[in-house]
Parts: sequence; C-alpha cells; structure tokens
Amino acid sequence: MEFVSPIDALFLLAESREHPMHVGGLMLFEPPEDAGPDHPSLLHRRLLEQDTVHPTFRKRPATLLSTPQLGWTRESDIELPYHVRRSALPAPGGHGQLLDLASRLHGSLLDRHRPLWEVHLIEGLADGRFALYTKMHHALIDGVSGQRLLRRAMTEDPASDHLGAPWNPPRTGRSKPERTGSTLGFARDLWSAATSAPALARAIGDALLRQQLTMPFAAPRTMFNAPIGGARRVAVRSWPLERLEQVGKTAGATVNDVVLAMSAGALRRFLTERGALPDKPLIALVPMSLRAPDDSEPGGNKICAILCNLATDLADPVARLDTIRESTRRNKQVYQSLSSTQAMALSALTLSPIVTSVLPALSSVAAPPFNLIISNVPGPRAPLYWGGARLDAGYPLSIPFDGQAVNITLTTVGEHLDFGIVGCRSSVPGMDRILDHLEAGLAELEEAI
Amino acid sequence: MEFVSPIDALFLLAESREHPMHVGGLMLFEPPEDAGPDHPSLLHRRLLEQDTVHPTFRKRPATLLSTPQLGWTRESDIELPYHVRRSALPAPGGHGQLLDLASRLHGSLLDRHRPLWEVHLIEGLADGRFALYTKMHHALIDGVSGQRLLRRAMTEDPASDHLGAPWNPPRTGRSKPERTGSTLGFARDLWSAATSAPALARAIGDALLRQQLTMPFAAPRTMFNAPIGGARRVAVRSWPLERLEQVGKTAGATVNDVVLAMSAGALRRFLTERGALPDKPLIALVPMSLRAPDDSEPGGNKICAILCNLATDLADPVARLDTIRESTRRNKQVYQSLSSTQAMALSALTLSPIVTSVLPALSSVAAPPFNLIISNVPGPRAPLYWGGARLDAGYPLSIPFDGQAVNITLTTVGEHLDFGIVGCRSSVPGMDRILDHLEAGLAELEEAI
Repeated sequence: MEFVSPIDALFLLAESREHPMHVGGLMLFEPPEDAGPDHPSLLHRRLLEQDTVHPTFRKRPATLLSTPQLGWTRESDIELPYHVRRSALPAPGGHGQLLDLASRLHGSLLDRHRPLWEVHLIEGLADGRFALYTKMHHALIDGVSGQRLLRRAMTEDPASDHLGAPWNPPRTGRSKPERTGSTLGFARDLWSAATSAPALARAIGDALLRQQLTMPFAAPRTMFNAPIGGARRVAVRSWPLERLEQVGKTAGATVNDVVLAMSAGALRRFLTERGALPDKPLIALVPMSLRAPDDSEPGGNKICAILCNLATDLADPVARLDTIRESTRRNKQVYQSLSSTQAMALSALTLSPIVTSVLPALSSVAAPPFNLIISNVPGPRAPLYWGGARLDAGYPLSIPFDGQAVNITLTTVGEHLDFGIVGCRSSVPGMDRILDHLEAGLAELEEAI
Repeated sequence: MEFVSPIDALFLLAESREHPMHVGGLMLFEPPEDAGPDHPSLLHRRLLEQDTVHPTFRKRPATLLSTPQLGWTRESDIELPYHVRRSALPAPGGHGQLLDLASRLHGSLLDRHRPLWEVHLIEGLADGRFALYTKMHHALIDGVSGQRLLRRAMTEDPASDHLGAPWNPPRTGRSKPERTGSTLGFARDLWSAATSAPALARAIGDALLRQQLTMPFAAPRTMFNAPIGGARRVAVRSWPLERLEQVGKTAGATVNDVVLAMSAGALRRFLTERGALPDKPLIALVPMSLRAPDDSEPGGNKICAILCNLATDLADPVARLDTIRESTRRNKQVYQSLSSTQAMALSALTLSPIVTSVLPALSSVAAPPFNLIISNVPGPRAPLYWGGARLDAGYPLSIPFDGQAVNITLTTVGEHLDFGIVGCRSSVPGMDRILDHLEAGLAELEEAI
C-alpha cells in the first residue's frame, strides 16, 4: 500500500461517468506475409502467455486512512484475459466501423477494482490489417509515457518475431526509483505543500495570468467550451511529416508551430462553416514533457503546458503561422521562471476541471482560460514491428473535459504525423469534418509560403 | 420536465460504476432461409429507419429544483445510431465469444446525458445465427415490461417480414396514463409519503420481518454476499419447459417451485464444491409482478418480492422441493396483507442496496436478509419471429448488487426456459459452473420423484 501522489490523485478525483480520465491509442498493423486468418487469435494467445506484469500495471486505487482513492495497492493476482481482450468489426470492416468501436471503447470507464488498463486486439478489418486499442488511466501514466511503453514492446527489426507485452516493458539498465510512491516521499510532498501552498498557488496563478497577458485577447467562448456528456466521437488521420517539415523550413518555424497553424486553419474553417467563429482568436493549451531524455521509468505524470494564441481571427494563413510562432516562443519563457515542481503543478491544474475552483484569480474571469488542448507527443521515426507485423499508424486518443469538448493529440509514427481527435459526441456534431479542414489548413500554408 | 417517481429514483441514486442499474437481455435469432451475409447490415438499416420513439425511450435524467436526477426530461432529438449499434464476435464466433461480449456490454454504464437504453445487433456467430443484446435502465422500465416490449416488436407469423422497433411499441388500444409522470402525481405521492411515511415504514419492516419469521433460519453469509466490483460475468442456458412441468406435475408443485428447487440443488453443489456450503439454508428473494394482466403501458416498475427458503441444508432433493413449495405458499400470504403501494415500496427497498440503511430493524441483524435474487419473468409460449428470423432463445440479464453478487433470472421462450445468470466477475470465480449444476439439480429431481 502506498499513497497516491497529489497530482495523480487529481485524475482519480475528477473522474466521473461524464469524464473518463484515461488516455488511449489506436494502432494499425500490417500482419506478416505468412499470417493466416487465425493470426489475431494466435497473437492473443501469445500475449496471454506473458503473465509477468510491471508494478505500474498492478496498481489499483485503494482506501487508505479511511479515504477512498487515497492509496495505491498492488494487485498480486492479475486476471490477464480481463485486461487483454479481443474484439471484431461488423461488416464491411471499414474505417467507419473501426472508429465506431474505438469511440465506444474510449467512452466507457475503467473498473477501479482492477489495475487501470485495458488492451483490445481488433480483427475483421476489410483491408487485412489488425488494430490495437489501448486504454490506461491518466493517474497511472501520462500520454508520453504510454506511447513510449507501447514502442518499447516493439522492435525495429522486420525479421524479428518479437512480441513485447506493453504491461511488461524491458529493463533499460537505467532504472530509477519511481517518482510517485513511498510514504516517505508523500510525507515530504505534504510537508512541502503545507509550508509553501499559498506561495505556490500565487506562483501558478501569476504564471497563468502572465501567459494570458502575453496574448492580445483572453480566450473567447466557443462551441468547444460547453459541458460534455459521457459519449465520445473519435476521428483519426495521418499526414506525411515531410509536408509539415517543408512548410516549417520555408517559414522558419518548428514542426509543432506548423501543427498548431494547420489546426488553427482547421478550427477557423469548422467554426466559420457553422457561423460560430468568434471575433477573438482561439487559445490552445499545448502540453510539453518535463521528462529528461534519459528518464526511462514508465509510471507517473511529468508534463507541463503553455497557452498559444491560434490567431483564428486572421484570414491570412502566413500571418496566423507568424502569430503562433511568436506566441509559443514567448510563452515557453514563462516556464523558465518556474521550478519543475511548480511547472508540473501548473500543468495538473490547467488540465483539471477543478482549475477554476482552486484559482480564484481565474474563476472571476468569465472567459475560459483556453479553448482546446492540442498536444504533440514525440514518436519514433524508424519503422517498428510487433510480432512480425509492421506498425502502420498509431493515433493517440486523449481526454475531453467539461468546458473542453474537443482534444487534438498527435504523434510521429515513421514518416507520418498521426492525428487523433476525441470529442464529446453530443456537444460537437460533425466533428470528423475537422480532418478535412486540417488537410485544407495544411494545403493553404503550402500554397501561401 | 417531470419528476422522477420515488421508486424509480432509487435506481438512479443507487447507481455507480460498481453498480450499473440496467436490465439486459440476450436474444438469439435464426435468420430466414434467404438471408445473405449482409443480413445484419440490412436489419440495422431497417431499424434505423424506424425513427418514431415512444416517450419512455426519450426520457433522460435532468436537474430539477437544483437537484440532479430528480427530474425526467424528454429528448426531442434522438440520435438513433447511438442507441442502435452493431457489434461482431472475434473468431471462432462461438458461445464463449458471445458471452464475453455480453459480459462487457452488461458491465458498462449507460450515458445519463441520453435516453437510458441501447440495442446491439451482434453478427459473426459461427452457427449462422445473429444475436441481439438490449440494455435499459431499471429507472425506465422493469424486467417484465422490458421483455414484454421486446415481444411486442415481434410477430407470431413466420411468413411475416415485420420488424418492430422495441423503442416504438404498437398501440394496444388500451392505453392508460403513465404511473410515473405528472407533477401533480408526484405532489400527491409526496403528500402521501409525508403523512404516512412512519406507518408505511413500519408496515414494510413488519412484513419483511414476518416473512423472515416464517423461516427456520435467517439467511446465512455466503460467497455471494460480498462487496462487488464493476466487471460482470454472464452465463446462459436453455432447458425444455416440459421437463420442469413433468416434475411439477408429479410433485404437485408449480413450475416456479421447480425452478427454485433446481436452483437450490445447483447452489448447494456449487458451494459444496468450494467447501463453502453454510449449515443454514440459503434464502432467495423471488420478485413477482404486480401488474394486472391488462396493464399494457411500457414504462415504470410494478414489482414486489417474496423471500423463499431454498433448503440448501437438505441433501434430499424431494425434501428440498417440499420445503420450497411450503415456503413460497406461506410468504405469498404476507403480500395479501399489503396494499399494492406498500408491496411496491417493500419490493423497491428489498431490491435496493440501501435497504439496511433505511430499515433500522434490519440493519441491526448481522446476516443479509437474503442470499440472492431468483426471478422468473413470464414469457411467450408461441414461436416468435422478427423480420422473418425465428427467436431461438431470450436470456434475461439482471443486476447484481453489493452483497448480492449473483442474480439468476429466467423466462419462457417457446418450449424452453432460458436462464440468464449475471455475477460480479471477481467475487464469484467459476460462476458458469452453476449451469452444469442446474442441469444436475433438475436431473436429480427427475430421478427422485
């Protein structure tokens, strides 16, 4: 039994039927040439044989000091067939059927009586590929660590039959003690919080407000900033990384700036189409990893976030990109004034629906602090293989919140950028139109530069 | 906007991730002879065309007088593809894959931002049949009404192509005002509760205690009377009705008494196998319908329940059947002393996890008031058809509670009795063994009588 870290506890406490707090991923694999129709079934059997489970994947919430969800306990007896499941698509097994299934899986809550993760092998795709949907609670792991774990289950060797289990990552030889964890560590956190909470809260409030001050306007209200229901809609598409790199190179911007610019173009079109484009520019929250490159531990959350002016009020795509580039540059500076702990706390607060209740300075502001989250998770450039099957695509699926009805998360897989958009099914009808608008947003940048 | 009736509100308030409060059903259909491989897809399209939705299937919980879940609102814009879904089984499409899927569907919560029902068309069964899983919130409809609705969507004419939508039952010409409903009705209920609550509570407590007094022992603690998690296990099987009728005829007992006796034999074997059979006999809660035969309205709950001594302490199957017959006969008499309202309130309380907190007389008793619910829902004897497909089986799937980890519900479909057993996946391992024990329980009765 151990204490849940204060930051991870936020993700447990904020969860409800309307706000599942898990991150997911949808991966597509091209099976090896000699694979038969029973390939998914054989894969599943091989996965179930891997019954060594990393401590992170044994954690489930427990009652501690009479308080539910305050403790982590480690499940000793893991029922692997519960966590590692098979599903199939109804005919004709196309893109639509796959996204319907992913939307449903992503919209249901994990069972807190078990370790907080699921893996679904999906068969029945018309094109002969198979899919993998993964689901891990955000209190267990952040999106970056989750993606890293999945990659570590794979190999770069196309001739290898290696089939790693994401729940049993290989040791890297650089193992460190986990960040969340010991009672001692928690007591230290508590002591530190008790002695510096007001100062910390002030620092966080200052930082958020300072970020907002660097923008010409506060975030306007949009259809994305509505209460949400429990049902989800998932939309995914890949773009050649080269196209974004070319735009960035010509315009002197990073790939991430180009991602934000094409998203800005897409959102502008989506809202214009509905006669709902606000006069003020949309503000995106853009998470960044605080992990050092050599931090190989799978558990816990180490992220922070900056606010970015998406310049959706500007019709000229080049002017939008310029504004975005300048906005990300200036707001990164805010984080340089914060310690790593402060930056993490800021991130946890901005990511949580309780932000307005804990930050009086913000709750008095009528407008939402930002309009949506756009997150670019690092990914591998080299082709990856899993049990001899080539990884074709890997779409990250993140968390919409009350007041943040759409989330855009993307990652690099080989030579592609894979976008996963998750939205509330009722607040944002026609959400998958954003995919076409993303293409248009990129195309107009290519043309204008 | 209307008030939720006090009884239906219990099912909304008691719901949590660990306690989904929906009733379900799993039906198997033999498609018509000329059906092609695209039959499920055509069925689905025909169902989506039926976009007239009965008011009961438009109800969703709403905030009233600043209290969430106190009101019902009627959704005017139903997104039918959300409620009517397609699923498929992974290979080989056998009984195991079907029950895995049903277990998962039954273990996830309905979205309260939408009307509280789902219908899943399931394809990919190896034997060429297709399945239908239905899910309706208990606050919307009780199991008896749910089964009735599904039957009314079908026809007895094998030559007919009629495909009724359960969400749009045909008018019977005997329509009555709904029980739950008007503000006026609620105010009347409230007035009546305020003026007679202590008297009513005393009557209920008396009735429950009187039922218990008619038994030789209070219910013992068993492995079924444990806290439960959110995951479910579903097990189903059919028995020829004729076998039970034959036993009943010979022994001078009702079919329902024989059902209880074969269940008692099964539970005795299941617990003995695990070295966990208590000395005292298990007590079953047996719901009965309070609906008059001509009550054709689909909404609301009209059920009551009796307690039955299952005589699991007796090795002789005939002695068990005798005890059960005597127990049901005497306990039915308790209900004759209650008004219909009192009987319904008693039922709602015994079915709810809050029973011990609202009945002080019972909460002081260490033992659970009963060990499990065994419910026999009336069903049709004539063969039924749906879009030309013959209904082969229809397994009702009900609700386990904290302290009531297994539920056995059955119904008649044609010449069969179809048993659906739903249990908590973690508290009752090996639950599907109960099916074999039910067969053994029936066989030993046939042999002994």
